[in-house]
Parts: sequence; structure tokens; C-alpha cells
Amino acid sequence: MPKNSEVSMSVVRRLPRYYRFLGELLRTGVERISSRELSVLMGFTASQIRQDLNCFGGFGQQGYGYNVVYLHEAISKILGFDNTQETILIGAGNLGRAIATYTDFKGRGFNLIGVFDNNPAIIGQRLSNCDVTDIAELEDFCKEHHPTVAIVCVPKTAAEQLAGRLVELGIKGFWNFSHYDISLKYKQAVVENVHLSDSLMTLCYRVNNETE
Amino acid sequence: MPKNSEVSMSVVRRLPRYYRFLGELLRTGVERISSRELSVLMGFTASQIRQDLNCFGGFGQQGYGYNVVYLHEAISKILGFDNTQETILIGAGNLGRAIATYTDFKGRGFNLIGVFDNNPAIIGQRLSNCDVTDIAELEDFCKEHHPTVAIVCVPKTAAEQLAGRLVELGIKGFWNFSHYDISLKYKQAVVENVHLSDSLMTLCYRVNNETE
Repeated sequence: MPKNSEVSMSVVRRLPRYYRFLGELLRTGVERISSRELSVLMGFTASQIRQDLNCFGGFGQQGYGYNVVYLHEAISKILGFDNTQETILIGAGNLGRAIATYTDFKGRGFNLIGVFDNNPAIIGQRLSNCDVTDIAELEDFCKEHHPTVAIVCVPKTAAEQLAGRLVELGIKGFWNFSHYDISLKYKQAVVENVHLSDSLMTLCYRVNNETE
Repeated sequence: MPKNSEVSMSVVRRLPRYYRFLGELLRTGVERISSRELSVLMGFTASQIRQDLNCFGGFGQQGYGYNVVYLHEAISKILGFDNTQETILIGAGNLGRAIATYTDFKGRGFNLIGVFDNNPAIIGQRLSNCDVTDIAELEDFCKEHHPTVAIVCVPKTAAEQLAGRLVELGIKGFWNFSHYDISLKYKQAVVENVHLSDSLMTLCYRVNNETE
């Protein structure tokens, strides 16, 4: 798969949505769909959809629309689901446990191979096919198994202490649930932040300002 | 508090970040800060910061900077944390439990008053000061307690079945973790989506395309 470095992040961020909607069409047996029909389902304009998909070469045929199986498969390749990233989870508290249990890693190009915590009450527990391991063993584990992605489910101060260690151990991508801004200091790291409390605060504002 | 309907959503979405960073400055005893210093901490430009805060009347003084206590308090009022929204959680599975346990609702303008599920094995369990209640009792509960916000932690098909019921029962704001797009059908509802799997798929793309 060639690197798509020319594609803007706003297009990239819409791809998972295409992937989800196409997956549902597949499940309901729809074989082809026009950009107009897709636009009604997804709430994007038809011209937006044509533009987005053209970034990757264009998959539609005038008068026919898109072949759902083909487009779904093509987007999965563009997203890189066929290149598995060895992944570790840091922090097996409530949030970490929910993420590990709830997420379909395999189907999304990730393979969860290790879970770490510093809490003796949690270490040794079984979580999503991994034993929760003492964070003190992080270095040995990474030297042996070479994970490239870390999911960070620890508080801000712990994340701050761990980020440099993880980068040094070869972690290139972070799924970051902490409030520590990893990319401020580690510019080369790829960081996807999930700031749940920011989303809740935004909801608070909007409920107070957009409703009667 | 006046309604700030003129403020763009991109400014609103940056406010939680200001609130978090100012909260930390408070905890470390910083009393005032210039837009330039804040820009180094936050990774926004100083002029962006001045522009953002000017949307709400401007809190800085030339040559002095911002008073941290005052600005933190002002942003908390703008976000609406002093207007408590009675809130219910729909779905007490792994994700719902993590959200209920992990989230500081009280400090963010929300009061969690009810948790609902349809799974007999979960109904009756205690979660974040609420008893998990049978979803069949949703109507009675809402008529008595008038919640205005719902946190949706159920699968897409369940969310699709429940959204209309919730809107009819007076729910105006949704913190939506499901893949059902509530705002497509219920245009008047305020919906903040947290699409965890979209974020993971974007990470997959970026790790494959932005790293060596």
C-alpha cells in the first residue's frame, strides 16, 4: 500500500465513518450505492463524498455508483487494517479495562499483546487475553516483543513520566486517554487523543446555549 | 448567564482545554499568565488565545496578562458548570460502567440520577450512587425526575430504538458513545459523539502513513 501523505487530515478523519456505513450496507446486502444515496445515509453532501473518495483514486463509475464490497475493502486497505501493529495497554483501571474489553483491536489493525499497571491488586489479573504485568517489566517486554503502539489509560502525571520511556522503547503511535499532551514534547510521535472530559464540557456548554 | 450563540463551535471546543490548563496553573499556585506563556504551555498561538478569549469579552490586561483564578472561574461559568443538568446513563455494560465510574459529573455541570439497562444480570447492581434500573421503567422515572441529558452506552440498534423515546421524554442533550447518529433524525437534539473506534481507525491510518 503506498503512503498517502498528500491526503488532508480532515479527509482521513472521515474515512472511518465511510468504513462503518459501508460495513452496514454490506451486512444488509446492498451491493452498490450512489454518492447521492450515501449522502442521505451519512449526512455528508454527495459532492463531498465524491471529492473525499477521489483523494484515493476514485472508486465510482458514472451512472453505476460505488461497488460496496470493493469500496469497503479499499478503505480498509487505505486505513491499514491489514498491517497489524503490536500494541500495549498502559493502565488497567476502570477505563483501561473498558477499552480492552470493548474494543475490536484485531479488526482494526491492532494486536493487543501486553497490559501494564503498577497496582499490585491488579497485576496478575487476566484482561483481554493478557495477564496484567508490573509496569517495572515494561523495558524487558518491549525489547522482546517490539510493540509499536501504546494505549495510555493512566492519569496525567503518570502519562508524563511514561511517555519518554515509551518513545525510547520504540512506541510510534499513542491512543491517548490521559490529559498529558504527548505531542507537545514528542513531535515525531503519532498521537490520537480521546479527551472524554473535554467532550463532556462541550456538551455542557451546548446544552446550556443551544436548547430552549 | 447570557446565551453565547454567536460563538463558533471551534472556539467552544477549545474552551475545555483552556479550563484544564488554567486548573493546573491554579493547582501549582500561578496567579497570572500572559497569552504568550499560555501559548507555550498549550500549543496554541498567543494571538489565537487572545482572539478566543475576546469572544467572551476579553479577560486580559495589556502588560499584566490574565488573572488565572478569575479566568478559570469565568470559563467555568461560560461552559455552564453552575447549571446542573439531571442526567441518566443508558447501558451499564463495560463501557457504561467505566464512564460512570471514571467521570467527574458533578464538577462538570451534570448530576447522574439514574442508570438503565435491559440485562437482568446487571439490573439492581449499584453503580456510581445509582441502582441499575430496568429500562422498562424509563418512562416512569423520567416523568418523575425530568432528566435533560442522556449518556448512551448501548449498541447502535438499541440506540436507534431508544433515541426517539428519550427525546419524547424531554432529553435535550446526548453524550453518545453509540454508532447511531442521533442528530440525523432528531435535529433539535444537542449531541456530542464519542466514536472510540473511529479514533482507533484514524490512529491506524496515521501510524501506517506518518511514521517511518
